[in-house]
Amino acid sequence: MVSIVALLHGPDRPGIVATIAGWIHEKGGNVIHADQHLDREENVFFQRVEWNVGVGADLEAESRNFAKMAEAELGMQVRTVLSNERPPIVLFVSKADHCFHDLILRWKAEELRGEIVGIVSNHPDLDHSAQEYGVPFLHIPCTEECKVEAEVAQLDFIRENGVGLVVLARYMQVLSENFLNDAGCPIINIHHSFLPSFAGAKPYHQAYRRGVKIIGATAHFVTPELDEGPIIYQDIHRVSHRNGVADLIAKGRDLEKIVLATAVRRQLENRILVYKNKTVVFD
Amino acid sequence: MVSIVALLHGPDRPGIVATIAGWIHEKGGNVIHADQHLDREENVFFQRVEWNVGVGADLEAESRNFAKMAEAELGMQVRTVLSNERPPIVLFVSKADHCFHDLILRWKAEELRGEIVGIVSNHPDLDHSAQEYGVPFLHIPCTEECKVEAEVAQLDFIRENGVGLVVLARYMQVLSENFLNDAGCPIINIHHSFLPSFAGAKPYHQAYRRGVKIIGATAHFVTPELDEGPIIYQDIHRVSHRNGVADLIAKGRDLEKIVLATAVRRQLENRILVYKNKTVVFD
Amino acid sequence: MVSIVALLHGPDRPGIVATIAGWIHEKGGNVIHADQHLDREENVFFQRVEWNVGVGADLEAESRNFAKMAEAELGMQVRTVLSNERPPIVLFVSKADHCFHDLILRWKAEELRGEIVGIVSNHPDLDHSAQEYGVPFLHIPCTEECKVEAEVAQLDFIRENGVGLVVLARYMQVLSENFLNDAGCPIINIHHSFLPSFAGAKPYHQAYRRGVKIIGATAHFVTPELDEGPIIYQDIHRVSHRNGVADLIAKGRDLEKIVLATAVRRQLENRILVYKNKTVVFD
Amino acid sequence: MVSIVALLHGPDRPGIVATIAGWIHEKGGNVIHADQHLDREENVFFQRVEWNVGVGADLEAESRNFAKMAEAELGMQVRTVLSNERPPIVLFVSKADHCFHDLILRWKAEELRGEIVGIVSNHPDLDHSAQEYGVPFLHIPCTEECKVEAEVAQLDFIRENGVGLVVLARYMQVLSENFLNDAGCPIINIHHSFLPSFAGAKPYHQAYRRGVKIIGATAHFVTPELDEGPIIYQDIHRVSHRNGVADLIAKGRDLEKIVLATAVRRQLENRILVYKNKTVVFD
Repeated sequence: MVSIVALLHGPDRPGIVATIAGWIHEKGGNVIHADQHLDREENVFFQRVEWNVGVGADLEAESRNFAKMAEAELGMQVRTVLSNERPPIVLFVSKADHCFHDLILRWKAEELRGEIVGIVSNHPDLDHSAQEYGVPFLHIPCTEECKVEAEVAQLDFIRENGVGLVVLARYMQVLSENFLNDAGCPIINIHHSFLPSFAGAKPYHQAYRRGVKIIGATAHFVTPELDEGPIIYQDIHRVSHRNGVADLIAKGRDLEKIVLATAVRRQLENRILVYKNKTVVFD
Repeated sequence: MVSIVALLHGPDRPGIVATIAGWIHEKGGNVIHADQHLDREENVFFQRVEWNVGVGADLEAESRNFAKMAEAELGMQVRTVLSNERPPIVLFVSKADHCFHDLILRWKAEELRGEIVGIVSNHPDLDHSAQEYGVPFLHIPCTEECKVEAEVAQLDFIRENGVGLVVLARYMQVLSENFLNDAGCPIINIHHSFLPSFAGAKPYHQAYRRGVKIIGATAHFVTPELDEGPIIYQDIHRVSHRNGVADLIAKGRDLEKIVLATAVRRQLENRILVYKNKTVVFD
Repeated sequence: MVSIVALLHGPDRPGIVATIAGWIHEKGGNVIHADQHLDREENVFFQRVEWNVGVGADLEAESRNFAKMAEAELGMQVRTVLSNERPPIVLFVSKADHCFHDLILRWKAEELRGEIVGIVSNHPDLDHSAQEYGVPFLHIPCTEECKVEAEVAQLDFIRENGVGLVVLARYMQVLSENFLNDAGCPIINIHHSFLPSFAGAKPYHQAYRRGVKIIGATAHFVTPELDEGPIIYQDIHRVSHRNGVADLIAKGRDLEKIVLATAVRRQLENRILVYKNKTVVFD
Repeated sequence: MVSIVALLHGPDRPGIVATIAGWIHEKGGNVIHADQHLDREENVFFQRVEWNVGVGADLEAESRNFAKMAEAELGMQVRTVLSNERPPIVLFVSKADHCFHDLILRWKAEELRGEIVGIVSNHPDLDHSAQEYGVPFLHIPCTEECKVEAEVAQLDFIRENGVGLVVLARYMQVLSENFLNDAGCPIINIHHSFLPSFAGAKPYHQAYRRGVKIIGATAHFVTPELDEGPIIYQDIHRVSHRNGVADLIAKGRDLEKIVLATAVRRQLENRILVYKNKTVVFD
């Protein structure tokens, strides 16, 4: 049964929960999940609410009406989706293939509420694998000289396919601020360290030199400040003096796969709100 | 500011959330936390809701009225408490002292929303330490022959002090079904294994013999079936072939402290509902 | 540079380490790793030692001579392998494909020191995927009536290919004691629970009913007693009242992949000794 | 039975293990633990070896002779201790008391192979508690103006008591380079973040602002560069958008206790070697 999911946030005031629950009930709907959060420091109210509509109701109209009400009466910013929407996803990759295989296999196993519609890469290496999976592969070389043209081609693909989520699955290029502005959808990156430790290049080499006893991976939304975007999910793995850089890289691969997949899944399930460079993740 | 916390559960039906939020809003209250859960298999709705009442409202009366409404209109079972209630707690201990020290120090550090009013033990060993902490110590020997009398004395203490939570902090005696019926409050036990593995006596010895690579500890409510009560919290620690039974016991002590303290804290914050031998823990 | 790895165990006595290190040094070898363990309860000494041989030495002869010495002089049971040996591996699968994809992709990414030479399945479902990976697929139906014939066919495949490791990658059939005796190589299984909890069928359903707060997966060697073999590796994931059986199964898939892959890798790196239904894993 | 523990490191060369094991065997000793590590990048060999000496042997003489041999013949740096040595420990504290209680209770529970001989604090707050535990308390105020005098008093205490380990158990003052040079023993600090993230002041506030999903604690040796010393042990705890700074601080307390205690225990068991600002921890 298709349900409506709404993500809201805005200044807290008395009666928000009652107004929202009352509105849904009045229209014959039934709340099946609701989770809220109050940031007391900022006085901002966040909510994710999911409901089944009454018999015969028009889902699209109901969504629009809800959003209008919550904006007008409660001053909230609202995003609504239907539970059966499956936004087109594009994966950006370079040469490393572990997150690429992992996400495609999860998609084929129906773990992801979206459709992988293409692979964009600055290297040709994964073309053959993408073909075997039956996913279009776009090789867009991206050197310093042709970065602008490359991003134009990337944005064309995004627009033509109505992409709703870009996933940087170990894509080894920095995206320009222009690209971020024009993409028109969220962009999730996996950074192979426990941010804010070891931002930037070669984090496992940095971790090895510092002699840390735990390594990590971080999935975050991409913003113009490199590796500074809102963090969605992190996980860690213990290491010891026995582990050289190659071991950290190998252990890190498993971390990266799970951390990126978790973040992508939560985004596709509409569980994430961003506020002031932080995330509220309703799980 | 004192708030009201209500824990409800009952058969699901449309409009519960709206009715509850509407009632609170109508009385001038403001919801500051709300978390719900729907067990779709059993069709049971669970909620924890916390709210500030309107200016000048009578907290006790408001609590009673809310409970009446939720029972009458929604068919819910309801428990309400005020956020500043601090129920008397009694710790049952034997000889092991790590959970004993840990809970008392957390209480003194104001981590627990309750008051430790006494230590009951079948051994005299911790009498001196209890005195240093300024907590009354009741030595009630409890051999097979005098178990009935011992439980009478324990129940007297519980009743006289209006105890709201009994914590078995490595208490090495099985409580009778009579005791459980008459205690009149929840009883939380720490079992030093990852239940349902290694129920019963000497779990670390059992774990060592089986050659497990991870040990655990489990906090659960006590029911007549030994080590079969609803699980509240569990945690684990890795072990290897290098660890003998003594190592498992030592590593386990840290687990037991944290697992028991977490369970006790959640109970005192009124975050736990029990249904069909399982817990719903709103954190 | 190819090195020799020896795994030894036997009754402890003074001078074992000195004898072994002395023997290697005398032959012009150089120890590059050595790890030992003394089980004080059983008085058994375990060692994994890896060394580079002197210039011009014959690796095979050196291995044989070492084993002879350690058996004759020290009363040890010895297994030696060369670091570049890559034993043939066969995966047994049924319908679930997550461990299947995971192991094959790790093999292709050169994470495994062995060669996957075939997939054996009682169902035809993964035939196509196996072909895409270029791995022979043997569909051997295995109902109650034809179990004996099926095992004959399986053993034929194992013998013909000189298989050195059988991996039950979510293979949903019990192997007979005959099969275990005749296979002539270790057999690793992944059980989708935190053993010894929830042995047998449908462990996630059992875990859900018991209301555990942590689920696990266990890789172990297969022995005639179902789910009772020596445990190699375990890992866990937190769950809550929000997770239905389907969630446990989904979260469990990631656990199963990593736990099985870790166990297989350690076996292929010759890091595991079995003694009295327990493992010594040198990592 | 008292054993000798030796920690060695130096340039790798063939035959080190054989020479050491041979020497011990020849003197009638028996190795009960041995663990080694080869840093292939630096070509440095590290070993921890523990052995029982032959009947009637002089432990002190044997230790000295071993060290001489390993230095002269193998070019190693060597430290030897007897397994029953219990070095005097001093805890430096300020106002926070959780690590203070934790370490003292572990010491009283005989988890630590050392003797806490005193508490040094720049605040008087824990004087009473120290007295109850029967441990001398030195209140040494330490403002900017009197820092030099304060450190003189601290160093006097260290020298007079032959202190072998200084533990900064949430001591909120930076020690001068002079102090570090003159202390004459290792100094272990607990930093309440997952270093290198959030070095410096108020790490939980920094973590909250950055919106991390995991917090950590780090035990490290103190060097002149603040929070840059060799890391001994780290651990982490998940947090979410629901956790304010106060929650991070509360969750962090449990982390800090366990991380600091683990590091102190390993140091007292002579399991740690430091090389190039990193640690080799033999566990």
